[in-house]
Amino acid sequence: MTHTHATELRVRYAETDRMGVVYYANYLIWCEVGRVELLRALGRSYAALEAEGIGLAVSEATVRYLSPARFDDRIRVETTLTGVRSRAVTFDYLIANAETGARLATARTALVSIDRDGRLAAIPQDFRVVLESVL
Amino acid sequence: MTHTHATELRVRYAETDRMGVVYYANYLIWCEVGRVELLRALGRSYAALEAEGIGLAVSEATVRYLSPARFDDRIRVETTLTGVRSRAVTFDYLIANAETGARLATARTALVSIDRDGRLAAIPQDFRVVLESVL
Amino acid sequence: MTHTHATELRVRYAETDRMGVVYYANYLIWCEVGRVELLRALGRSYAALEAEGIGLAVSEATVRYLSPARFDDRIRVETTLTGVRSRAVTFDYLIANAETGARLATARTALVSIDRDGRLAAIPQDFRVVLESVL
Amino acid sequence: MTHTHATELRVRYAETDRMGVVYYANYLIWCEVGRVELLRALGRSYAALEAEGIGLAVSEATVRYLSPARFDDRIRVETTLTGVRSRAVTFDYLIANAETGARLATARTALVSIDRDGRLAAIPQDFRVVLESVL
Repeated sequence: MTHTHATELRVRYAETDRMGVVYYANYLIWCEVGRVELLRALGRSYAALEAEGIGLAVSEATVRYLSPARFDDRIRVETTLTGVRSRAVTFDYLIANAETGARLATARTALVSIDRDGRLAAIPQDFRVVLESVL
Repeated sequence: MTHTHATELRVRYAETDRMGVVYYANYLIWCEVGRVELLRALGRSYAALEAEGIGLAVSEATVRYLSPARFDDRIRVETTLTGVRSRAVTFDYLIANAETGARLATARTALVSIDRDGRLAAIPQDFRVVLESVL
Repeated sequence: MTHTHATELRVRYAETDRMGVVYYANYLIWCEVGRVELLRALGRSYAALEAEGIGLAVSEATVRYLSPARFDDRIRVETTLTGVRSRAVTFDYLIANAETGARLATARTALVSIDRDGRLAAIPQDFRVVLESVL
Repeated sequence: MTHTHATELRVRYAETDRMGVVYYANYLIWCEVGRVELLRALGRSYAALEAEGIGLAVSEATVRYLSPARFDDRIRVETTLTGVRSRAVTFDYLIANAETGARLATARTALVSIDRDGRLAAIPQDFRVVLESVL
């Protein structure tokens, strides 16, 4: 596989606001869906990682909004793993209209790995190897 | 104090949908705010209850929508404790426009007390006594 | 087709709360997804209905919570159209774990049809005929 | 008044996730609350601006997460207007624990002014004058 994974979703009514478009915070939810699905495509479950006691907490997020998404649009989230270190991982995202291909937003998130007490903790070695294999 | 507690909030843009009004699921969030504030007014913190290992999980919720709430409206949530048993508690809610007094919604929730493993567990005695004092 | 339509979704991290389960208001979002997909399966788009100037506003919603949904669970939403009148429509929902079949929640919503000014307005005849065909 | 406005809010249960802290997208909702309240403190209502046909759409948002917010924390959102142009405005945010003063997050948003059709449109002159008065 490549280091970019695409997943699709349908815009929910709940995600819109009274401007008639998707509320800006909700793109970060789609980014989360994108990275969970990228991990699944790599054969790794984020839920299983947490069950091992390691979570990935977002330390920085940036979104550039290019064109609004609307109710019922089919959305494609392309997630790219862009960096892996012992206790950090970064992803880029391209959010597009799946039917027209129109680019709606780009985003970038940095995440740090933490234990159940919220302290920085190393990403498990086997998990890190899988991530590095697609860089 | 009486058994009804009122708290106010302001409608957020995020809470609206493309119909131009507050999305229907969000009224349940306001009910949650209402019961947390009722408990606080009784001198009890829901966060502290959870720190003791007991949570209150909603087992049933009903909302009747009477008139739409809109962005920036000031909302009053009147929460009434209507029943307490060893492992269950019920609340009624009246959601109104705080400026006009217009009734926007009524709601009712039943909650059960559970331990950290999700099993039914008795509400702590001191907590229950406080609740029963305002029935 | 039958009058019940099933759609599936995956629980998002955003939908969980600190009890470790899906926050109770979010089931109403899934009900909305269920009825939009039921309409689509009938060949009708809710977005198109709104483009005609008619919306369906929820007038009452009830959810019974049976067992918690958790992050990454695959969820099946079975939506059943239970009633159609000139200006109202009702749906029942069964929300289940798609892998285990465990019943997580049942719900019921009543909706009224309104025009762009929020006044009661008849459901368009062609739309109503389609709905009635599956009752 | 200064160009920084502070508003407070209480973390809702709905805003937490199963990591036990506030879900990362929700900080953008608090930023929205912050800028709406800053405008109100300046004597301007964002709802009124929209009623005139002009909206402010976020074109870019960045959040740096420093320390997690938790259920029931009192949060202070300090919003600073950092730039005004004919069709754009920028804000900085400092999100802190209102009781301890701990810095939880910093954020920055750029917004563009648009008309009801989503096209770039000038911020009304009287509105812009007020904004510029506090730069």
